[in-house]
Amino acid sequence: MARPKPLSGFPEWTPDQRIVEQALLDRLRATFELHGFSSVETRSVEPLTTLLSEGETGKEVYALRRAGADPDEGQGELGLHFDLTVPTARYVLEHAPRLAFPWRRYAIQRCWRGERPQEGRYREFLQADIDVIGRGSLPQHYDAEMPVVMAEAVRGLPIPPITVHANNRKVAEGFYRGLGIADPVPVLRAVDKLEKIGPGGVHELLVDQVGCTEAQAEACLGLAQIQTADGSFVDRVGALGVRDDLLDAGLAELADLVEQVHRAAPGLLVADLRIARGLDYYTGTVYETTLAGHEDLGSICSGGRYDDLARGADEVYPGVGISFGVSRLLGRLFGRGELRASRPTPTCVLVALPTEADRPGSGATARVLRGRGIAAEVAPEPVKFGRQIRYAERRGIPFVWFPGRDGASDEVKDIRSGDQIPADAATWSPPPDDLHPRVLAADAG
Amino acid sequence: MARPKPLSGFPEWTPDQRIVEQALLDRLRATFELHGFSSVETRSVEPLTTLLSEGETGKEVYALRRAGADPDEGQGELGLHFDLTVPTARYVLEHAPRLAFPWRRYAIQRCWRGERPQEGRYREFLQADIDVIGRGSLPQHYDAEMPVVMAEAVRGLPIPPITVHANNRKVAEGFYRGLGIADPVPVLRAVDKLEKIGPGGVHELLVDQVGCTEAQAEACLGLAQIQTADGSFVDRVGALGVRDDLLDAGLAELADLVEQVHRAAPGLLVADLRIARGLDYYTGTVYETTLAGHEDLGSICSGGRYDDLARGADEVYPGVGISFGVSRLLGRLFGRGELRASRPTPTCVLVALPTEADRPGSGATARVLRGRGIAAEVAPEPVKFGRQIRYAERRGIPFVWFPGRDGASDEVKDIRSGDQIPADAATWSPPPDDLHPRVLAADAG
Repeated sequence: MARPKPLSGFPEWTPDQRIVEQALLDRLRATFELHGFSSVETRSVEPLTTLLSEGETGKEVYALRRAGADPDEGQGELGLHFDLTVPTARYVLEHAPRLAFPWRRYAIQRCWRGERPQEGRYREFLQADIDVIGRGSLPQHYDAEMPVVMAEAVRGLPIPPITVHANNRKVAEGFYRGLGIADPVPVLRAVDKLEKIGPGGVHELLVDQVGCTEAQAEACLGLAQIQTADGSFVDRVGALGVRDDLLDAGLAELADLVEQVHRAAPGLLVADLRIARGLDYYTGTVYETTLAGHEDLGSICSGGRYDDLARGADEVYPGVGISFGVSRLLGRLFGRGELRASRPTPTCVLVALPTEADRPGSGATARVLRGRGIAAEVAPEPVKFGRQIRYAERRGIPFVWFPGRDGASDEVKDIRSGDQIPADAATWSPPPDDLHPRVLAADAG
Repeated sequence: MARPKPLSGFPEWTPDQRIVEQALLDRLRATFELHGFSSVETRSVEPLTTLLSEGETGKEVYALRRAGADPDEGQGELGLHFDLTVPTARYVLEHAPRLAFPWRRYAIQRCWRGERPQEGRYREFLQADIDVIGRGSLPQHYDAEMPVVMAEAVRGLPIPPITVHANNRKVAEGFYRGLGIADPVPVLRAVDKLEKIGPGGVHELLVDQVGCTEAQAEACLGLAQIQTADGSFVDRVGALGVRDDLLDAGLAELADLVEQVHRAAPGLLVADLRIARGLDYYTGTVYETTLAGHEDLGSICSGGRYDDLARGADEVYPGVGISFGVSRLLGRLFGRGELRASRPTPTCVLVALPTEADRPGSGATARVLRGRGIAAEVAPEPVKFGRQIRYAERRGIPFVWFPGRDGASDEVKDIRSGDQIPADAATWSPPPDDLHPRVLAADAG
């Protein structure tokens, strides 16, 4: 068989990259659980009709069929979920009687989108989401909790600082309404291109294609260019002279958000009135997140409030959530060589094997080490010790253990320094930094 | 929207069941890593041609198409993997230059099969696999390591004991050849029905449909009914009077396996000459595993040696692996109510909220507790304390923390006993059993 080629858009990490990914996932999970979020994983599939009705174009959803099945069989067509929010909303409706609200949940799962692959956009990718979902209503303070928890989760790993950019859907919608614009959607779409085509391009789009007046276009652009680290955006919007109740409600919510996040995590969040988010289900707060030095990558952590996504026969379940793009972040940092593992294997000690008859003895030594939490394996074959040491080197295992013969003590060699000392498997411990692989910035030793 | 219904074959756990699943996955991962297995996760998709050539019928493979795409676009048809072995073999061929052999890897991932759903057979399910893969050759002792590691992984959780049933493909194949049967496949298929249709039924099948003589059928049945906890199966096969080199090689490998596993984990493994395994890629050792009291569920942990699965242009990569059926096991134990979590949420402490203005203060208390590894959240709303306690009760949170007012000390209440004591967030700790949710047998307190 010829060497298989990677599939574009379906990233796979090497074993050492996977160690970095595991450390990030462990950190996300530990933080989410410390904050009282329960893990819930949903199935990977939803009815295709649900997926296609929630703001994704048909081309981006992967539909399933059984390779040999009749096209008309069974339970309706299924597709792979493109995010974790739509399945969560469905899960809430399905399981509501068994959940306690406000319900705090996290999920770390793969999603699939049939987009044209490019850096940061994959066809299969891992997302880590937290959501809080209420029954009937959900207090506004949860909107401030989401970015604070995420920021806490990524601290403690050697990744660049993040900035959360927040807006509120009511601000733009109320502002456009106050300007006399009936349908906000085409305006939002035009403004969303600000970074790509610049203010001049957006102005042209608004006037020529959306049908705005010059003054309306000017005002929309003015709004989109407001970005402040504190509550001063309220006055700057006021200065544009548009009055609308929905706008006022949105400004008040956004000002609250900025103040609450500032109190818990100063410098984390800015009000950025350009942020729109493509998915239709957001109704209030929206977030995007940039990584310092990697702003061109786009948002690595996005979300918002969805007051209407989960609506049962008698009850509505408003929610707010934020989703960390694990694959997007790691794809960039791996591609730039900015993160690495201290070694590519969990194994700390290779127990050498003098002869094949010694396998039970070497196995017993490895068992004693493992019983003390030290990852250990026995050499594959009783070849010369030099070759066993080279095997450890190739695998990135830092220590080789030599069983003592004829009553002599066992010895353990640090194969990086060459130091070899007498040791007892019942008491020896590696330096704490060597016990498990660690995540390092690429320039760290 | 009406309440959504579950999709048959796509199980989803409740939050408390998910806590049990996480504990099992944590235990599997920790054990695998202590034994020096590296995590590697592959993409969920493989080219459909690869999947269809590896022993699965077309009806069982899910093919993907982009919902809105032209049928003739792009990169060849893709399907969801039906196990983790076929993707691992492909990963090895693709990444061989970057791997150190023998390569020890584990994966805990979802798989998909479009089978008719029934208990223990899902369309989406979670598998936990370990494999060791060599380059050119792979010593036989790894065949004994697989079941020992798996047994160690499931110890320490309140699940019933397991028994691994092992056979060797060479035994049956050599035995049939020695009997003068040219094609072993239809014989294996008939013998595989032993449990379902009994010896009489198999005998009839062998004679009437496969074309065996009465004597051949008798001998095949005799072989399949041999099951011993030690090496005595060798003599019992010998007594059937069939002579063949491949048979002798298989018996020697299986006797070695039995002896080595017995030394490391007495009572874990039996030689069971009925075991066949459906997938075509096994070439030597095969394993199945039964759970005490749940033998009717079938195997919860299966695998074997595949010497030819990964074959590059110049090199072959023989491997041996075993795969734990996480969803199958949990589906049964949840269905029978045999496993539960001590609580359905990670949260240990709910910090009460006297008034909305106290949110920053209660938040600070929660932060201090979290900093000490105690999962804590703040009450959703400043309602009467009785209602805040009932919220904790509904969520299964064992402790409620009351901020002290006017200089009084904070107090913490165990809402199960009603005991309430003065406490300082910087020093108070819950009893160790309450720090995290634990997994319990259903009848345990």
